[in-house]
Amino acid sequence: MKHHSIIELIERKRDGGALLPDELQWIIAEYTADRLPDYQMSSLLMAIFINGFSAEELGPWTEAMLLSGEVLDLEHISSPKIDKHSTGGVGDKISIPLAPMVAACGVAVPMMSGRGLGHTGGTLDKLESIPGFRTRLDKSEFVATVERYGLVLGGQSETMAPADRRIYALRDSTGTVPSLPLIASSIMSKKLAEGINGLVLDVKTGSGAFMKDEPSARALAETMVGIGASHGTKVVATLTGMDQPLGVAVGNANEIAESLDVLAGGGPTDVVDLTYSLGADMLVLGGIDADRDEALARLKKAVDSGAAMEKFQEVIAAQDGNPDVANDRSLLPTAPLRFELTAPESGYVTVCDARDIGVAGVRLGAGRERKEDDVDHGVSISVVSKVGTKVDRGDPLAIIEYRDQERLQAAMPLLSRAWKIGGSASEPELIIGHVT
Amino acid sequence: MKHHSIIELIERKRDGGALLPDELQWIIAEYTADRLPDYQMSSLLMAIFINGFSAEELGPWTEAMLLSGEVLDLEHISSPKIDKHSTGGVGDKISIPLAPMVAACGVAVPMMSGRGLGHTGGTLDKLESIPGFRTRLDKSEFVATVERYGLVLGGQSETMAPADRRIYALRDSTGTVPSLPLIASSIMSKKLAEGINGLVLDVKTGSGAFMKDEPSARALAETMVGIGASHGTKVVATLTGMDQPLGVAVGNANEIAESLDVLAGGGPTDVVDLTYSLGADMLVLGGIDADRDEALARLKKAVDSGAAMEKFQEVIAAQDGNPDVANDRSLLPTAPLRFELTAPESGYVTVCDARDIGVAGVRLGAGRERKEDDVDHGVSISVVSKVGTKVDRGDPLAIIEYRDQERLQAAMPLLSRAWKIGGSASEPELIIGHVT
Repeated sequence: MKHHSIIELIERKRDGGALLPDELQWIIAEYTADRLPDYQMSSLLMAIFINGFSAEELGPWTEAMLLSGEVLDLEHISSPKIDKHSTGGVGDKISIPLAPMVAACGVAVPMMSGRGLGHTGGTLDKLESIPGFRTRLDKSEFVATVERYGLVLGGQSETMAPADRRIYALRDSTGTVPSLPLIASSIMSKKLAEGINGLVLDVKTGSGAFMKDEPSARALAETMVGIGASHGTKVVATLTGMDQPLGVAVGNANEIAESLDVLAGGGPTDVVDLTYSLGADMLVLGGIDADRDEALARLKKAVDSGAAMEKFQEVIAAQDGNPDVANDRSLLPTAPLRFELTAPESGYVTVCDARDIGVAGVRLGAGRERKEDDVDHGVSISVVSKVGTKVDRGDPLAIIEYRDQERLQAAMPLLSRAWKIGGSASEPELIIGHVT
Repeated sequence: MKHHSIIELIERKRDGGALLPDELQWIIAEYTADRLPDYQMSSLLMAIFINGFSAEELGPWTEAMLLSGEVLDLEHISSPKIDKHSTGGVGDKISIPLAPMVAACGVAVPMMSGRGLGHTGGTLDKLESIPGFRTRLDKSEFVATVERYGLVLGGQSETMAPADRRIYALRDSTGTVPSLPLIASSIMSKKLAEGINGLVLDVKTGSGAFMKDEPSARALAETMVGIGASHGTKVVATLTGMDQPLGVAVGNANEIAESLDVLAGGGPTDVVDLTYSLGADMLVLGGIDADRDEALARLKKAVDSGAAMEKFQEVIAAQDGNPDVANDRSLLPTAPLRFELTAPESGYVTVCDARDIGVAGVRLGAGRERKEDDVDHGVSISVVSKVGTKVDRGDPLAIIEYRDQERLQAAMPLLSRAWKIGGSASEPELIIGHVT
């Protein structure tokens, strides 16, 4: 690889210029090989943050990050390999019912998920509520599981996209996290390393999302779809609202229970709607169905026939979990104490703030403030009254199951301000738009 | 000191906000104490570079840098203590005749100079051409020398403004050097730590200067004068042209010889004019004279009487140099080989490029490309024909005295392109303006 002067490259980006593909590849390669010190990378990242990164730069940058480590080769699996990624929200357990439903319809889903950090939960933490369930799989087990069952639910491997891991840690400590191109390349480098044919994105917007407003969520979605195109992978994105939590359950074990409800044909309307919508995208992207209507019918059949639940149970067993949770929810962890948050006045719920509820969940122990924190799988918030619900004074807004009085105290200020009650309110839109 | 979150401060500067005095002090204190990693500092410096630093931020930032180390206490010296600083150029030996002239008139000059780097020379390197001359003085010797002679010519102490030293090194490797506020605070933190009552600045503009155009030089001058005001120190600045070298001599020993010429009442007009002009500023700033005319007359008397030369000789002897150089230039180092660069055609010199000649000097060995390089004090360029000079084909443009054929070869491409000859040209303006 041709050698470059890192200072010249930093200066160019500082002055608003563009970096060329081989320069971007060189930067990532040098940083991964420990030949570029953090202080030069952080200076460059700040210049990128402020001056931006064009589509022509983002493609090679993402490509270099994905090539910085192992790339899964799933060529030998004949089914279409499609994954789904959400930018993260509160109560967002969609992946859990979605993956088995889609796998039951013939799409192979090599799903790599993350852990919760900050106010958002993580799919891995939720899955680990299932007694015995292992999310830490080595590469051969990961590949063998998706090969055999058409589904695997694992964590991100340390050997995949190591450049992204290091850059993310550096961004986290240098004030360069909320940059649209840096977020997009971070997500896409990991996902594209999974060796998939297509990717369905759920890009969230609202108080509980990373992107607070619709234009920035749309821009992020467009950027990620563009990166996919430049890599030659089909990517479609759905913009969804995250001003209030998704579904009723916020926590870990209770989100598994809600996911099982969906697989059993029940569950809250918003969770069901979004699961089917994203599932239809995955089936169409995988070429299983020609259009969304066909796909929706196929998904419904997979649920009604029990095939989707059966697929989930198979994979739970394959990953050492107890598949009986499907029929016996008492196998899931719980918390011993119960608190009911009630409406202080009568009216309609006008606000049910996802971020406040998410942070309250973290304070109860359901999430982690720092990476090294443990998660309490049993504590939970059940969001009983969501926006648009008519409540009388004293009606429950939420049920909190907790383990520790002090933690409840810490969560209370957030819980008591999360709901607002007013004269009228209608149910907010969940699916805001699509980017293809 | 109140603790702050560095990430919050970086984010605020990244988003164009302003940092408060106690936050700026905290950043410098933490960085000096090794509690702030380089990668966070470099990220902040890039945000400052791109988004700027207001006067309200620069004052406390500079103050914190100057307080990061030792500050000289010269209160017990009753004379006014005035220093001069130049932003650096080619052939800029002004400090050397200036300091003794002014000291001979009753101003105490605690001069701390730097070494050459890149295409510009350094006063310390030039002074070290004088046999035996020591520029490395400890604090007590530095103070004792200025106390006794009203003059000392030393290097910057490692213990003064250590924050600036570390920040400068970091900027040098992270593409954040040419930032007006960062340059201004770097210069001023070191100068204000000298315990002076006033400072005279020579801010250069042109091809051989850091600031290529007059508006940016003026802005730098205004910024430094503003920092001085916020510290309570009188600062005046002169804007001077640096499109061609100053004087005839470019090198080290030959610049000492030219300085001695000025002290003996001779020397090239531009060097003489600028030395007297800055000297008059120093005398007026120190309250020795009421106006510049009075000051100019006093300086002339100091030269004509031999007092200025005597003062220089006193201090050379005090710093272990051989004071006989004043009368015997053959004591200065020379180079054995000689090359005459001649005019390729007849006409007027329209360009005599300071930067090209400066870089040529470095290639001959007169300066250093890297900090660890040694300097050859004997090699030199004598700039015989400057802008506005009428030359015939074959007339000398410059005389190069060199030691090594290969080094001359390396300098030749720069020397042969440095001069341009055209139909007409007038002498350029040296003193462009003043900022007070």
